[in-house]
Amino acid sequence: MLNFFPIHIDKKSKSPIYQQLGDALHDLIEQEILKPNMKLPPIRTFAEHLKINNVTVVNAYKYLENKGVVYSQMGSGTYVSPLPIKETPSSIFLEQLDSNEKDLTTPEQNTINFVTLSPPTDLFPVDDFKALFNTVLERDKGNAFNYQESQGYLPLRESVCDYLHHYGIQTSPDKIQIISGAQQGIDILSKALLRYGDILFVESPTYHGAIAAFQSRGGRIIEIPIEKDGMDLKVLENYMKLYHPKFIYVMTYFQNPTGISYSVDKKRALLNLAEQYDTYIIEDDYLSDFTYSSRPIVSLKALDHRNRVIYIKSFSKILMPGLRLGFLVLPKSILQSVLSAKHTSDISTSGIIQRTFDLYLRSDLWKKHSKDMQNIYKDRYACLLTEIENLLLEYVSYIPPEGGLSIWLQLKDHYSIEEICNRLLSYGVIVSPGSLFSFNTSTLPYIRISFATVDNEHIKKGIQIFYDVLKEYQENNKKGLSH
Amino acid sequence: MLNFFPIHIDKKSKSPIYQQLGDALHDLIEQEILKPNMKLPPIRTFAEHLKINNVTVVNAYKYLENKGVVYSQMGSGTYVSPLPIKETPSSIFLEQLDSNEKDLTTPEQNTINFVTLSPPTDLFPVDDFKALFNTVLERDKGNAFNYQESQGYLPLRESVCDYLHHYGIQTSPDKIQIISGAQQGIDILSKALLRYGDILFVESPTYHGAIAAFQSRGGRIIEIPIEKDGMDLKVLENYMKLYHPKFIYVMTYFQNPTGISYSVDKKRALLNLAEQYDTYIIEDDYLSDFTYSSRPIVSLKALDHRNRVIYIKSFSKILMPGLRLGFLVLPKSILQSVLSAKHTSDISTSGIIQRTFDLYLRSDLWKKHSKDMQNIYKDRYACLLTEIENLLLEYVSYIPPEGGLSIWLQLKDHYSIEEICNRLLSYGVIVSPGSLFSFNTSTLPYIRISFATVDNEHIKKGIQIFYDVLKEYQENNKKGLSH
Repeated sequence: MLNFFPIHIDKKSKSPIYQQLGDALHDLIEQEILKPNMKLPPIRTFAEHLKINNVTVVNAYKYLENKGVVYSQMGSGTYVSPLPIKETPSSIFLEQLDSNEKDLTTPEQNTINFVTLSPPTDLFPVDDFKALFNTVLERDKGNAFNYQESQGYLPLRESVCDYLHHYGIQTSPDKIQIISGAQQGIDILSKALLRYGDILFVESPTYHGAIAAFQSRGGRIIEIPIEKDGMDLKVLENYMKLYHPKFIYVMTYFQNPTGISYSVDKKRALLNLAEQYDTYIIEDDYLSDFTYSSRPIVSLKALDHRNRVIYIKSFSKILMPGLRLGFLVLPKSILQSVLSAKHTSDISTSGIIQRTFDLYLRSDLWKKHSKDMQNIYKDRYACLLTEIENLLLEYVSYIPPEGGLSIWLQLKDHYSIEEICNRLLSYGVIVSPGSLFSFNTSTLPYIRISFATVDNEHIKKGIQIFYDVLKEYQENNKKGLSH
Repeated sequence: MLNFFPIHIDKKSKSPIYQQLGDALHDLIEQEILKPNMKLPPIRTFAEHLKINNVTVVNAYKYLENKGVVYSQMGSGTYVSPLPIKETPSSIFLEQLDSNEKDLTTPEQNTINFVTLSPPTDLFPVDDFKALFNTVLERDKGNAFNYQESQGYLPLRESVCDYLHHYGIQTSPDKIQIISGAQQGIDILSKALLRYGDILFVESPTYHGAIAAFQSRGGRIIEIPIEKDGMDLKVLENYMKLYHPKFIYVMTYFQNPTGISYSVDKKRALLNLAEQYDTYIIEDDYLSDFTYSSRPIVSLKALDHRNRVIYIKSFSKILMPGLRLGFLVLPKSILQSVLSAKHTSDISTSGIIQRTFDLYLRSDLWKKHSKDMQNIYKDRYACLLTEIENLLLEYVSYIPPEGGLSIWLQLKDHYSIEEICNRLLSYGVIVSPGSLFSFNTSTLPYIRISFATVDNEHIKKGIQIFYDVLKEYQENNKKGLSH
């Protein structure tokens, strides 16, 4: 293998030899001649081969390690990093679009937003919250604005346990950590569990906000492909043996972006693997409340008898994203480190929000709202499916999800997703390109269509535009080919 | 120097030689025979001396580096880390005490709390906020609960600029980042600016919450001693040359815990050094509003014409800690990376809190409240100083701060601070021991007395108990010596 490395060392050059060697290897890595997780040559052999000193090779590897391009495993060797740690500006751009779009004072009236996963503001239970705010302030006065326990307001942790009981999750308030939204949950778990260079597994494709948080802690991310009923277990098991990850991040219901849900068998297999290889599973339950089938929801956490599952729940998608509220259910073993990570992150979540939400959860308002939202979304979901069936089947394929707020459309391989997205945009339709949900492939022949803020009228209009764009694209493509 | 290292390598042992060597060095570091920032022997010399292979020494150093015990600088060598990265459970315990004490349903009525820096709940402007909450919900409805721009609600960023204008800071809304409290500000700045192993400077002693956040990002912290008018510039300049830190974290007014403020000369010198060595200064303005002298407040940021200062402001101490609201003023060069760090941390700060606070800041309520609080605290400050002058001068010395909420008492060197704190606790008086504000000395002969929640009656009672405890301690000590 060594003979294939086109490395030239110039001993007369002014740059130190370790740096010349490091830069040459870096080039090979960037050109993907040296591939992710490939082992670099052993130090002594490589040094002999290049006729340089052992320590120079060590320094070259070290130089690359400082750049994050390779990693070393004690007693085993040095390997090419699974990814160059890089910024992800495009995802931030799109999330911004997602966040801001409702907040503009002069929104583009004609935009059809198939990107956002949050409910439209006119469906927020604002009046209920207003009344409860006032109740809390009457009752608690200044205490509502004081520091709260970092772990969270105790009565809220109690009502969260009651809520979970309905989903078959038995836990106690001492295992609940209140968080300022799911993104913070992911962030503080990264802080508590990851040390720089640690390996973790995610589904491929997955939620870009999680990738960004893991990357920002220096986590090395390995993607495990998913099938229609969950992670590919063969790949997973092979990789578990190789890497012993710190944790596996999954969405078991209506996975973002694919919409798939895990089978019971795969859930059990995942739990067994976690036990066997002594790792944790982070289960991000961002949306299981919106199921449109009659099958009961059974989270991984509900099946977790060996304390392997860390459960994240947020209320952004069900209730209102601006609440910035959610919770974690934690194995006892990591309670203290998560509490400490929460404390250094923002000390505690807003007391007035926690207290108001506690009253909301204890009232019947919550159940009613959740049911109402489910009905509205079920109707939109049916409408979207019908429109896709009627118009798009010539161009796309997909697996109908059993719930959630989006559909993951696979387009024909040779389509340029970027070009299609741009054309849609020119007609005022915004969608999420597949590339947003993976960090090491710049193209995935998919588009995610979310209907959280789009009513049936606009779903019909939007899919009609989608059809027109695809048809025109295909015709131009054919013309291009025939020339 | 090598001859003094008592290192024994057993080539017949089952543990690898690199590990034996690493463990032996680790012991020497723990015993402080090898001191922080001391250079380890050069690889080849050391290997010859120990009659082992170069690569074994390299592996031993690497093994220690993975543990965070040493760090390496390319082309220069390997050095003992300024600190072993360790958990700080004691500080978390005390902060918890601080946070929870108001929230207990059955507080110990007789406790005199000289620890907390937050105002008592009965001084919170709850009614004003309640009225404004309702105004916001009437006006903005669902928008108040939607995602907000990650950078912060624009009208609030505008009113923050007006507020800053009164303090001589000229900036614009595009340079403001809204944060969920100062702790989050420190955390996201760490995320945006630090890479694992980067060096940063702090004042010694300093705020333990900042240390915890920097440590959690793998930052290597160097402490710069402070004098009565700011950092020791000689030490600072020497260390700047050596380390080129990513940033310097300072509190220019009523520093926590010492209470000192920077002279104008030191502020200018600090800015010049930042320019010369191309680094940033994080100025944590947690309390400058509470000044009791007639001298105007001139922040580092107001003097910063070369965009070296990152300014953090929170309203926890002035208004209500449970608001979880503050802001950063940022140099343009780091706007994007801070925004991205905020986004991966919690997407955005609560919209309803931002909107309500915006109205508060625009009204005259803010000015009135801030003035009222200042008067209350000025009175308590005078009372505390008088009591200390009357009773404690035999046992303690201190520099009277020009503002803030605490006094930093230096006790005689041979006093056991731990024992004194425990005795005070047994009489129901809690104080902050000096050791809490440094991470590499377990004893600092200081105690911080804060009067934020203690009225004059309890200040008098508390200092009387302090006097009794010190007197008794000294008498016992004398008896002990005479035996």
